[in-house]
Amino acid sequence: MDGTQAQEWLATAVAEARAGLAEGGIPIGAALYRDDGTLLGRGHNRRVQDDDPSMHAETAAFRSAGRQRSYRGTTMVTTLSPCWYCSGLVRQFGISRVVIGESETFQGGHDWLASHGVEIVQLNDPECAAMMRAFIEDHPNLWNEDIGDE
Amino acid sequence: MDGTQAQEWLATAVAEARAGLAEGGIPIGAALYRDDGTLLGRGHNRRVQDDDPSMHAETAAFRSAGRQRSYRGTTMVTTLSPCWYCSGLVRQFGISRVVIGESETFQGGHDWLASHGVEIVQLNDPECAAMMRAFIEDHPNLWNEDIGDE
Repeated sequence: MDGTQAQEWLATAVAEARAGLAEGGIPIGAALYRDDGTLLGRGHNRRVQDDDPSMHAETAAFRSAGRQRSYRGTTMVTTLSPCWYCSGLVRQFGISRVVIGESETFQGGHDWLASHGVEIVQLNDPECAAMMRAFIEDHPNLWNEDIGDE
Repeated sequence: MDGTQAQEWLATAVAEARAGLAEGGIPIGAALYRDDGTLLGRGHNRRVQDDDPSMHAETAAFRSAGRQRSYRGTTMVTTLSPCWYCSGLVRQFGISRVVIGESETFQGGHDWLASHGVEIVQLNDPECAAMMRAFIEDHPNLWNEDIGDE
């Protein structure tokens, strides 16, 4: 895909991550786009805000998009490499592409998705990595809870 | 694990599936138990009821359990083999065991989970299979939507 478009879409996910941080939450954001540029849904991690462990950024964006008959040609844009939970979502629903802000602070299932035909676009965005690195340093227990790491 | 206990726990998931069916929804139910028998959470598929594609039975049970610091020693009991989305949930959060009512009408990621150290208990329950078979026959489009199948 076009690198400029990927960066534009990432900006939506970053805005979600920042909104989550401002609410006292874990700063991970995501958005679901159609190939024609239609924004279907956007969201951010809501573990802290809603006491809801099921709302990772990607699941929040997926939920916000509502019921869809097909996810063919859609792109999940996320500030951070999707964990297994969110990678499973992408695979099950046939989301075509994942744009990843950074996979430096955490590596989920993106290689597995690639091996199952999902297009993976890595942006190695310094702002995403810096935001997450600072958060993990300040809140290691919360971060470990969010990824089920004891 | 003990077969009688697995069947008892499955009864909770079946009750959830029946409740979902009575609400006009997709009849899949799940429950999350601790090894000591504590019921942490229970739920059923809510795609139709809440127009929410993110609430599969297992994610609903996980959500209902609230925030947990560890899932070690927990069991996800589900009436149907968990899809990739729900299998990813189990793997990411380190849920120790999955008890499956049936995997005849749908096969998700349970072999993958087994290969990653999750204990899988298959109950081959005729009631679970009959309930799902009847539902799929009556509502094929809804079922395909729920698993992202075009």
